[in-house]
Amino acid sequence: MSTEARDTIFIGKKPLMAYVTSTLIQLANLPSVNIKARGLSIGRAVDVAQIIARKTENAGYSIGEIKIGSESLESQDGRTRNVSTIEIEVKRNQA
Amino acid sequence: MSTEARDTIFIGKKPLMAYVTSTLIQLANLPSVNIKARGLSIGRAVDVAQIIARKTENAGYSIGEIKIGSESLESQDGRTRNVSTIEIEVKRNQA
Repeated sequence: MSTEARDTIFIGKKPLMAYVTSTLIQLANLPSVNIKARGLSIGRAVDVAQIIARKTENAGYSIGEIKIGSESLESQDGRTRNVSTIEIEVKRNQA
Repeated sequence: MSTEARDTIFIGKKPLMAYVTSTLIQLANLPSVNIKARGLSIGRAVDVAQIIARKTENAGYSIGEIKIGSESLESQDGRTRNVSTIEIEVKRNQA
Protein backbone atom coordinates (compact mmCIF):
# COMPACT_ATOMS: atom_id res chain seq x y z
CA MET A 1 0.00 0.00 0.00
CA SER A 2 1.40 3.35 -1.03
CA THR A 3 0.51 6.56 0.80
CA GLU A 4 1.16 8.60 -2.34
CA ALA A 5 -1.79 10.68 -3.52
CA ARG A 6 -3.69 8.79 -6.21
CA ASP A 7 -6.20 10.58 -8.37
CA THR A 8 -8.27 7.46 -9.14
CA ILE A 9 -10.34 5.25 -6.82
CA PHE A 10 -11.46 1.88 -8.24
CA ILE A 11 -14.72 0.57 -6.83
CA GLY A 12 -14.77 -3.12 -5.93
CA LYS A 13 -16.42 -5.32 -3.33
CA LYS A 14 -15.55 -3.52 -0.08
CA PRO A 15 -18.27 -1.78 1.94
CA LEU A 16 -19.36 1.50 0.34
CA MET A 17 -18.10 3.68 3.19
CA ALA A 18 -14.54 2.33 2.67
CA TYR A 19 -14.53 3.98 -0.78
CA VAL A 20 -16.13 7.16 0.57
CA THR A 21 -13.31 7.43 3.12
CA SER A 22 -10.55 6.68 0.56
CA THR A 23 -11.95 9.30 -1.79
CA LEU A 24 -12.19 11.94 0.95
CA ILE A 25 -8.59 11.25 2.01
CA GLN A 26 -7.39 11.78 -1.57
CA LEU A 27 -9.50 14.94 -1.89
CA ALA A 28 -7.69 16.40 1.13
CA ASN A 29 -4.55 16.51 -1.05
CA LEU A 30 -5.87 16.81 -4.60
CA PRO A 31 -8.32 19.19 -6.27
CA SER A 32 -10.17 16.32 -7.94
CA VAL A 33 -10.43 12.53 -7.83
CA ASN A 34 -11.91 10.10 -10.37
CA ILE A 35 -14.11 7.27 -9.14
CA LYS A 36 -13.99 4.37 -11.60
CA ALA A 37 -15.99 1.16 -11.83
CA ARG A 38 -17.08 -1.43 -14.33
CA GLY A 39 -19.90 -3.91 -14.72
CA LEU A 40 -21.94 -4.60 -11.61
CA SER A 41 -19.98 -2.04 -9.56
CA ILE A 42 -21.19 0.91 -11.67
CA GLY A 43 -24.20 1.57 -9.42
CA ARG A 44 -21.93 1.54 -6.38
CA ALA A 45 -19.63 4.16 -7.96
CA VAL A 46 -22.66 6.45 -8.36
CA ASP A 47 -23.59 5.78 -4.70
CA VAL A 48 -20.09 6.75 -3.50
CA ALA A 49 -20.09 9.97 -5.53
CA GLN A 50 -23.57 10.89 -4.33
CA ILE A 51 -22.79 10.22 -0.66
CA ILE A 52 -19.77 12.55 -0.86
CA ALA A 53 -21.64 15.28 -2.76
CA ARG A 54 -24.65 15.10 -0.44
CA LYS A 55 -22.82 14.99 2.88
CA THR A 56 -20.48 17.85 1.99
CA GLU A 57 -22.95 20.06 0.14
CA ASN A 58 -22.35 23.83 0.34
CA ALA A 59 -19.08 23.24 2.15
CA GLY A 60 -17.15 20.83 0.15
CA TYR A 61 -17.15 18.76 -2.96
CA SER A 62 -19.29 18.35 -6.04
CA ILE A 63 -19.68 16.08 -9.06
CA GLY A 64 -17.64 17.04 -12.13
CA GLU A 65 -17.37 15.32 -15.48
CA ILE A 66 -18.91 11.86 -15.93
CA LYS A 67 -17.77 9.48 -18.67
CA ILE A 68 -19.07 6.08 -19.67
CA GLY A 69 -17.34 3.56 -21.90
CA SER A 70 -16.82 -0.12 -22.50
CA GLU A 71 -13.89 -2.50 -22.29
CA SER A 72 -13.35 -5.82 -24.06
CA LEU A 73 -12.49 -8.71 -21.78
CA GLU A 74 -11.56 -12.22 -22.83
CA SER A 75 -13.56 -14.72 -20.82
CA GLN A 76 -12.27 -18.16 -19.79
CA ASP A 77 -13.93 -19.85 -22.78
CA GLY A 78 -11.86 -17.58 -25.04
CA ARG A 79 -14.76 -15.41 -26.17
CA THR A 80 -14.61 -11.63 -26.03
CA ARG A 81 -17.18 -9.87 -23.89
CA ASN A 82 -17.81 -6.17 -23.52
CA VAL A 83 -18.19 -4.68 -20.06
CA SER A 84 -19.47 -1.16 -19.42
CA THR A 85 -17.39 1.30 -17.42
CA ILE A 86 -18.00 4.61 -15.64
CA GLU A 87 -15.69 7.37 -14.45
CA ILE A 88 -17.06 10.09 -12.15
CA GLU A 89 -15.01 13.15 -11.22
CA VAL A 90 -15.47 14.52 -7.70
CA LYS A 91 -13.87 17.93 -7.21
CA ARG A 92 -13.36 20.59 -4.61
CA ASN A 93 -15.81 23.47 -4.96
CA GLN A 94 -14.36 26.78 -6.07
CA ALA A 95 -13.88 29.05 -3.04
CA MET B 1 -49.40 2.05 -24.58
CA SER B 2 -49.06 5.33 -26.38
CA THR B 3 -47.26 5.58 -29.71
CA GLU B 4 -46.41 9.22 -29.05
CA ALA B 5 -42.71 10.04 -29.15
CA ARG B 6 -41.28 10.02 -25.62
CA ASP B 7 -37.91 11.55 -24.94
CA THR B 8 -37.22 9.38 -21.87
CA ILE B 9 -36.70 5.62 -21.55
CA PHE B 10 -36.82 4.19 -18.01
CA ILE B 11 -34.70 1.08 -17.49
CA GLY B 12 -36.35 -1.73 -15.52
CA LYS B 13 -36.27 -5.51 -15.48
CA LYS B 14 -36.88 -6.37 -19.17
CA PRO B 15 -34.09 -7.89 -21.30
CA LEU B 16 -31.48 -5.29 -22.27
CA MET B 17 -32.24 -5.47 -26.00
CA ALA B 18 -35.86 -4.43 -25.34
CA TYR B 19 -34.57 -1.06 -24.10
CA VAL B 20 -32.07 -0.80 -26.96
CA THR B 21 -34.95 -1.26 -29.43
CA SER B 22 -37.24 1.23 -27.63
CA THR B 23 -34.49 3.83 -27.56
CA LEU B 24 -33.68 3.35 -31.27
CA ILE B 25 -37.37 3.70 -32.17
CA GLN B 26 -37.58 7.00 -30.30
CA LEU B 27 -34.34 8.21 -31.88
CA ALA B 28 -35.89 7.72 -35.33
CA ASN B 29 -38.25 10.59 -34.45
CA LEU B 30 -36.33 12.69 -31.97
CA PRO B 31 -32.84 14.26 -32.01
CA SER B 32 -32.08 12.98 -28.52
CA VAL B 33 -33.43 10.56 -25.91
CA ASN B 34 -32.65 10.30 -22.18
CA ILE B 35 -32.08 6.86 -20.66
CA LYS B 36 -32.94 6.93 -16.95
CA ALA B 37 -32.44 4.38 -14.19
CA ARG B 38 -32.06 4.15 -10.45
CA GLY B 39 -30.48 1.82 -7.93
CA LEU B 40 -29.53 -1.60 -9.25
CA SER B 41 -30.60 -0.72 -12.82
CA ILE B 42 -27.92 1.98 -13.20
CA GLY B 43 -25.35 -0.42 -14.67
CA ARG B 44 -27.94 -1.62 -17.18
CA ALA B 45 -28.64 1.95 -18.32
CA VAL B 46 -24.92 2.32 -19.08
CA ASP B 47 -25.03 -1.01 -20.99
CA VAL B 48 -27.97 0.17 -23.13
CA ALA B 49 -26.28 3.47 -23.98
CA GLN B 50 -23.00 1.73 -24.81
CA ILE B 51 -24.63 -0.89 -27.02
CA ILE B 52 -26.31 1.86 -29.06
CA ALA B 53 -23.19 4.02 -29.31
CA ARG B 54 -20.97 1.07 -30.24
CA LYS B 55 -23.25 -0.57 -32.79
CA THR B 56 -23.99 2.70 -34.59
CA GLU B 57 -20.53 4.27 -34.38
CA ASN B 58 -19.54 6.58 -37.27
CA ALA B 59 -23.02 6.30 -38.72
CA GLY B 60 -25.40 7.09 -36.01
CA TYR B 61 -25.71 8.05 -32.40
CA SER B 62 -23.43 9.09 -29.60
CA ILE B 63 -23.49 9.69 -25.84
CA GLY B 64 -24.37 13.23 -24.75
CA GLU B 65 -24.70 14.66 -21.28
CA ILE B 66 -24.66 12.30 -18.28
CA LYS B 67 -26.17 13.31 -14.93
CA ILE B 68 -26.22 11.47 -11.62
CA GLY B 69 -28.40 12.26 -8.63
CA SER B 70 -30.27 10.74 -5.75
CA GLU B 71 -33.89 10.40 -4.76
CA SER B 72 -35.42 9.90 -1.31
CA LEU B 73 -37.79 6.97 -1.02
CA GLU B 74 -39.84 6.03 2.02
CA SER B 75 -39.46 2.32 2.74
CA GLN B 76 -42.18 0.12 4.22
CA ASP B 77 -40.85 0.53 7.75
CA GLY B 78 -41.35 4.30 7.40
CA ARG B 79 -37.65 5.18 7.15
CA THR B 80 -36.29 7.34 4.38
CA ARG B 81 -33.67 5.81 2.10
CA ASN B 82 -31.67 7.47 -0.62
CA VAL B 83 -31.36 5.79 -4.00
CA SER B 84 -28.90 6.89 -6.68
CA THR B 85 -30.11 7.80 -10.17
CA ILE B 86 -28.53 8.23 -13.59
CA GLU B 87 -29.66 9.98 -16.76
CA ILE B 88 -27.74 9.40 -20.00
CA GLU B 89 -28.47 11.40 -23.15
CA VAL B 90 -28.13 9.57 -26.47
CA LYS B 91 -28.24 11.89 -29.45
CA ARG B 92 -28.07 11.83 -33.21
CA ASN B 93 -24.63 12.77 -34.54
CA GLN B 94 -24.38 16.09 -36.32
CA ALA B 95 -24.40 15.55 -40.09
